[in-house]
Amino acid sequence: MPELRKDPFVSNRWIIFSPERKQRPVEFSSTDKEKGKEPFDVFSWGKENLTPHEVFALRPKGGLKDSPGWSVRVVPNKYPALRIEGDLQAEGIGIFDRMNGIGAHEVIIENPNPDIELEDQTVEGIAGVLQAYRERILDLQQDIRFRYILIFKNKGRLAGATLKHPHSQLIALPIVPREIKEKIEQARRHFGIKERGLFADVLREELRSGERVIMENSFFAAFCPWASRFPFESWIMPKFSSLDFSTLDDNQIMLLSDILQNLLRRLKKGLQNPDYNMVLQTAPLRNSRQDYMTAVEVDFRWHIEILPRISYLAGFELGSEFFINPVFPEEAADFLRQIRKI
Amino acid sequence: MPELRKDPFVSNRWIIFSPERKQRPVEFSSTDKEKGKEPFDVFSWGKENLTPHEVFALRPKGGLKDSPGWSVRVVPNKYPALRIEGDLQAEGIGIFDRMNGIGAHEVIIENPNPDIELEDQTVEGIAGVLQAYRERILDLQQDIRFRYILIFKNKGRLAGATLKHPHSQLIALPIVPREIKEKIEQARRHFGIKERGLFADVLREELRSGERVIMENSFFAAFCPWASRFPFESWIMPKFSSLDFSTLDDNQIMLLSDILQNLLRRLKKGLQNPDYNMVLQTAPLRNSRQDYMTAVEVDFRWHIEILPRISYLAGFELGSEFFINPVFPEEAADFLRQIRKI
Repeated sequence: MPELRKDPFVSNRWIIFSPERKQRPVEFSSTDKEKGKEPFDVFSWGKENLTPHEVFALRPKGGLKDSPGWSVRVVPNKYPALRIEGDLQAEGIGIFDRMNGIGAHEVIIENPNPDIELEDQTVEGIAGVLQAYRERILDLQQDIRFRYILIFKNKGRLAGATLKHPHSQLIALPIVPREIKEKIEQARRHFGIKERGLFADVLREELRSGERVIMENSFFAAFCPWASRFPFESWIMPKFSSLDFSTLDDNQIMLLSDILQNLLRRLKKGLQNPDYNMVLQTAPLRNSRQDYMTAVEVDFRWHIEILPRISYLAGFELGSEFFINPVFPEEAADFLRQIRKI
Repeated sequence: MPELRKDPFVSNRWIIFSPERKQRPVEFSSTDKEKGKEPFDVFSWGKENLTPHEVFALRPKGGLKDSPGWSVRVVPNKYPALRIEGDLQAEGIGIFDRMNGIGAHEVIIENPNPDIELEDQTVEGIAGVLQAYRERILDLQQDIRFRYILIFKNKGRLAGATLKHPHSQLIALPIVPREIKEKIEQARRHFGIKERGLFADVLREELRSGERVIMENSFFAAFCPWASRFPFESWIMPKFSSLDFSTLDDNQIMLLSDILQNLLRRLKKGLQNPDYNMVLQTAPLRNSRQDYMTAVEVDFRWHIEILPRISYLAGFELGSEFFINPVFPEEAADFLRQIRKI
């Protein structure tokens, strides 16, 4: 059974121990032995019976559950990091802390064609994927055991992908992750000093200077953040106050899809189809939000981070939580701005 | 010029922007194109004029500086992440914070033979490498601009190594890294509640249960930590109170070398020569220590972390600072304990 363990040395750092993940078809390995050996694609039309039953799908022309004809399909992960069944039980083992590995782990199949990556889809297609993100958050947040939902995408082997068919993943957690807690705490400190929102202040500064902005539309801005950890790291942030991704309406999602498509295509063209991670950092779920966000004085804002994986994380980064980045974000943004014909 | 930038959203997270690192012979790349294309080895005997002048060396039979005959040799990194020359200047740019990229970046060449890895050396050979670590800390801590020295080793491409010749690296920083600050803060909190040291308490618990212990000798214990981030993650910690690695004497270093050799050989044999990072986390330097460690109530203890890189860090880890690990540390320790004939 999976288990959550708390790091005794680093506050808010938790580890999911997930022994079932060892039995995945693609085993972890230090070598590139299995490269090119692509497992049988279970994420296309007609293979619906090879995945767990779907929990959401978009079917433009209608159709039965678990049948072909879908444009986006969400299924539980066959090799979940956490288990949906059971009660949350937290306990101490001597000095250490553990919890049952309760959570949800789902796969968002972005389209039925294994060769069409997210950035290759139409703006309507990407909007469908973003709608699936929203609908899954809205559904899962009803489960009071969960405090946070992280949605992410691993593209390419260096980004940790084991299956080629374009997909995103969702993990619902009984704990708010360290990085999110930290950002909320930092926003609270900022408000304490300035009486202004941190996310709003940073975005205002980015838009005023423009040095790190890649593009913007009426609702959203894409920029390379001041303290980018990775070369060409790019964020998309709403220009309006928006705590929770799941509150977006369809019009906002269309404009988000448009800027996301544009940004991903620039990265693809400029960096020759790089491996990347994409992460959606939204607010903690409603039922745990009061613990972290006493209303107005925390201006947390959901945002999407795209982390190209064109360099390796080494001992320095893993041993210090310091990062070395050879590319200034001003230079990265300038490069991405200038790409024509995306 | 390199520059240090502070993350506005995550407290104590700093990024080193190091444009010079782009010009390294091995460029960063998403593909494995350059695999096998090993650059000319400048770290062997007779090539001393191809590196910057040495700052330390062990020469068992004597000999001139920058001449052959050394067993361990330390040189400034030819492509440093930080620059040693200049004054520390911190300033605000609008809402953001930056600092000049001042620091030291050195390479510890562990032996003259490119094919003898650290774990393949004799116990005396490894002790020489650990002595070099100690001597470089003792020398660099006289520079009052520095607050921390991180020593680490990247073995293999997945661990971020770009050169094959076995070497470690040292980076002296004007800032105490986030992970170290966090561990000190956590130890302080623990003392506040328990009136006991956190590191001592955790080690006592590990030795009592024995479940995660791989081996121990009179001075040191090797164990897989309770909240291992990586499969087969292994730490070495002193069994005596020891804040600062540079205070070790030669006898202690011999016993550390012995347990380190043993542990690395178990990992090599058990995991088929895995890529790994090794990190030495020691206390902040003396001249900044009073800020972080008001004497007795912080029992920080230096330790070595070995992080096998047999799985990839993906969007979940990078987007949440949560980790998924398929291997329980009890299982990992049991596996490593049972390896015979190392």
